[in-house]
Amino acid sequence: MAKLDLKKYIRDIPDFPKPGILFKDITTLLSDPEAFGYSIEAIADSFKNNKIDAIVAVEARGFIFGGAVANKLKAGFIPVRKRGKLPWKTKSVSYELEYGTDSLEIHQDAIKPGSRILIVDDLLATGGTVKAVTDLVKEMQGVVAGVAFVIELGFLKGREKLKDYPVVSLIQY
Amino acid sequence: MAKLDLKKYIRDIPDFPKPGILFKDITTLLSDPEAFGYSIEAIADSFKNNKIDAIVAVEARGFIFGGAVANKLKAGFIPVRKRGKLPWKTKSVSYELEYGTDSLEIHQDAIKPGSRILIVDDLLATGGTVKAVTDLVKEMQGVVAGVAFVIELGFLKGREKLKDYPVVSLIQY
Repeated sequence: MAKLDLKKYIRDIPDFPKPGILFKDITTLLSDPEAFGYSIEAIADSFKNNKIDAIVAVEARGFIFGGAVANKLKAGFIPVRKRGKLPWKTKSVSYELEYGTDSLEIHQDAIKPGSRILIVDDLLATGGTVKAVTDLVKEMQGVVAGVAFVIELGFLKGREKLKDYPVVSLIQY
Repeated sequence: MAKLDLKKYIRDIPDFPKPGILFKDITTLLSDPEAFGYSIEAIADSFKNNKIDAIVAVEARGFIFGGAVANKLKAGFIPVRKRGKLPWKTKSVSYELEYGTDSLEIHQDAIKPGSRILIVDDLLATGGTVKAVTDLVKEMQGVVAGVAFVIELGFLKGREKLKDYPVVSLIQY
């Protein structure tokens, strides 16, 4: 697979969602068939020999990449959603926000004990959300076989929270 | 492709999101690699000769199927999101809810004039949301080449709102 400079496809948006934040917009990558296809291929390729049973992804942007990677790896897909969005019995986990906490939910029967899980998300920032998801997977006796991101904001040191797992990111800032 | 009875993978949840509604839960389909893979293959197959440039999908469940179909068809992916979620300049459309209205947004530069769009969503109910999305695509001078759903609730007659387009659904109730 010829290497593609994915950074070219990311659009910087100043002051979103609030003043002082330079938001990395992935919609310009998504809309380009070559860049989107390359991203999915690159993540899938990194874990193709890891016997991944299912992808776990967090709504909403994580679903775009997670669904495609699941399909590429012939794995299942397990959604993690915000409170109240999943219809059946859930298990939930809290995680810290800048001010206060929020929680995420997963269906109680979503993860079979011993199944090998790849967590996929668009962005690794401080790592608080994804760390909460790894805790949830482990609590349900799944095996976190890896964590993959399209973008990693290295200066926020999110990777330090994920030391126990193989972490792959396609674009680093 | 051998035919798979996808209905077996759908879980009925009574009284979600409110009393009297029998919710069709797709997470049991998603978590099964064969059923999920078959669904993506079936949608992609229906439009493989339609020169699809991009998939348009609505958050959040639509992203799971839409991302995978985009990847399968080597097309781009264009997200439609709830108000305030997209970071760049948007165009918005209102649609009717049971009580009141809500709105959806798409990036202003998301659709190139003349590009051929396949809209993908998990569920066709009354068709209000997806009709709003077809209007948005047309307003941006895209061509709605088709609309695909995993589940169609036929008794709600959503298909009548989509008469101008090829409509595919994998499971009908």
